[in-house]
Amino acid sequence: MNQNRTLKGTLDGQSVKLDASTRETLYDTSFYGRPMDNYLELTLIEAAYLTYKNRVTVTHENEDLDFEGLMCESSRREGNFEVKYIVYKDLRERGYFIKPGVTDFRVYPRGGKPGKTPSKYFIHVLSERQPVPLINLVHHVKTAANVRKELVMAVVDEESDITYYGVSLRSMKGDMGTAHSDAAIRATLLEDRVMVWDSHSSDLLHKQHLFGKPLDETRLQLSLIEAAYLQEKNIIEIKDSLGEHVLTPAEFSDTSTTVEADFPIKLAVYRNLRDAEMVVKTGYKFGNHFRVYKKVEAGVGMKHSEFLVHAVDSNHVFNLPQLSRAVRLANSVRKQMVFAWQSGDDILYLELGRMKM
Amino acid sequence: MNQNRTLKGTLDGQSVKLDASTRETLYDTSFYGRPMDNYLELTLIEAAYLTYKNRVTVTHENEDLDFEGLMCESSRREGNFEVKYIVYKDLRERGYFIKPGVTDFRVYPRGGKPGKTPSKYFIHVLSERQPVPLINLVHHVKTAANVRKELVMAVVDEESDITYYGVSLRSMKGDMGTAHSDAAIRATLLEDRVMVWDSHSSDLLHKQHLFGKPLDETRLQLSLIEAAYLQEKNIIEIKDSLGEHVLTPAEFSDTSTTVEADFPIKLAVYRNLRDAEMVVKTGYKFGNHFRVYKKVEAGVGMKHSEFLVHAVDSNHVFNLPQLSRAVRLANSVRKQMVFAWQSGDDILYLELGRMKM
Repeated sequence: MNQNRTLKGTLDGQSVKLDASTRETLYDTSFYGRPMDNYLELTLIEAAYLTYKNRVTVTHENEDLDFEGLMCESSRREGNFEVKYIVYKDLRERGYFIKPGVTDFRVYPRGGKPGKTPSKYFIHVLSERQPVPLINLVHHVKTAANVRKELVMAVVDEESDITYYGVSLRSMKGDMGTAHSDAAIRATLLEDRVMVWDSHSSDLLHKQHLFGKPLDETRLQLSLIEAAYLQEKNIIEIKDSLGEHVLTPAEFSDTSTTVEADFPIKLAVYRNLRDAEMVVKTGYKFGNHFRVYKKVEAGVGMKHSEFLVHAVDSNHVFNLPQLSRAVRLANSVRKQMVFAWQSGDDILYLELGRMKM
Repeated sequence: MNQNRTLKGTLDGQSVKLDASTRETLYDTSFYGRPMDNYLELTLIEAAYLTYKNRVTVTHENEDLDFEGLMCESSRREGNFEVKYIVYKDLRERGYFIKPGVTDFRVYPRGGKPGKTPSKYFIHVLSERQPVPLINLVHHVKTAANVRKELVMAVVDEESDITYYGVSLRSMKGDMGTAHSDAAIRATLLEDRVMVWDSHSSDLLHKQHLFGKPLDETRLQLSLIEAAYLQEKNIIEIKDSLGEHVLTPAEFSDTSTTVEADFPIKLAVYRNLRDAEMVVKTGYKFGNHFRVYKKVEAGVGMKHSEFLVHAVDSNHVFNLPQLSRAVRLANSVRKQMVFAWQSGDDILYLELGRMKM
């Protein structure tokens, strides 16, 4: 059959049906559609793409639809149709074979083919304006991971540009040991930070374990999070500014939560990372909760952190422009962007990174 | 008088008073304090810094306070005391002379001195956790601009690191001309974008005026914002996907606002920028509403935009970690970060950029 002659298909609900004889041209060589007993079935996306390529003409109610007509019909029949079409066209033109899949598309590795090679990616297509619940994203990642695929989120912006993100669950582990102290170190809560006044204790906490930031040669300032963690471990004892009352962990946590509403979840993630022997410092300059180091060599200073970690609620809903900013900023400073949340007694970590397809 | 002998001062409410004879040592050479008729008055910040330097000892209720004691007393007497102390110490140690001022501090230019040179910056000190209403920031910028000073926001993070931001109001003006069309171009609304189907119109809009993004060689996709603007100017006519009904501007705006809640303010800013002859494209990849070009040369393509613009409500409250991320990302790609909002019939623009002090 000659590829230059367009093949006739019929619009039927959410798909387009072609004569079984088209299988050879469309499916056997190019993997379009799904061969059924008596016909070949194309998705609306495949039909639109083949119409654009002038290889198929779709008939609806005995009239031929042009590309415009098919796009209008399809976008009324299938949600997110245009953005899925944009992503399908982009991937196909980059030489990938694509099949429909549970997360939207299954994509074969470069050079791979349906029937010969297993698919590599599960693609999930989103318009930049769609809110994305964390639990949905985790569900898709697990669906993909269960069959050993990588989840890729394809986000189509207002201008129809596509950004691809690799998404995966990961573990976090460092190599810094954990801090100990024989006697509790004296510290004072001043408004929204905690001060360690003597230079020996300041050195122990800062030089050996990278807690806090020196105020001057003698004194060390701890953040509320650092102080809460060190208090839990009985390494410091925190007094109020009158020096009269030693705060209990519950009192300190209450005070901290009035200063910072997300203190409890931040502390849970901080604790998990520090207990995993990582160095955790503020990520303020990067607009996230923490920057995280696997290891910091003594004397070398805080050079390059590997991760930016942001703690979120387990019912968090991502706003894609904000997510884009976070990932882009992290990647621009060669760090990996990781979101963390509490799941039962565990802290889970989701990594997102821009990828080239 | 010998600088190695500490001078005695007395804590009195929100300041520290010293004998008039200390004026020569503290004020005349180093510009600490305010000379009064019979005494020299130091702010609590100045007193704490001079205590740290062992130049002053502050007495309270007939007892000498050490640095720890003075910090505890001061942080109970003055809000934001620690963060202001951190910024004061940093600027002083960088060689600047600093006086109290309406926005927190007035700072003299490098090499300049009180009495000799006018001050250059108004510094406004914030802890990273403080919410910052846009109207407050604009008020501070105007206060500074009225006396020809530059507003600098000093943000102290959790770890006591300081980031300085220059803040100013600015105008936006480009050099691209504006679009016209003799007859209204036919376009169709599909879900959340608008399609122009013929290649002549696509070329006119895209190649000459950089509206939209080509779907393929023939068709152009416009964003909702672009379509609304072109509809206002009678350049396009928008039909629904059945091709039966021409949408009125009010209908199109209603539909767009259901897709995107901030559509009205985005459109107001987009219109203002396009009317100012700038090229405005989505800023999705940078997590903002728009990237903005003064001019794009035909054929050269969309290389480097000068600005990232984000539209906000006039009652917007900045979250400093998010602000930090926006500015850092913009600066890392050599763009200026600009926030825009509606003020009466005008659109105002506030530029924020990281600066080295």
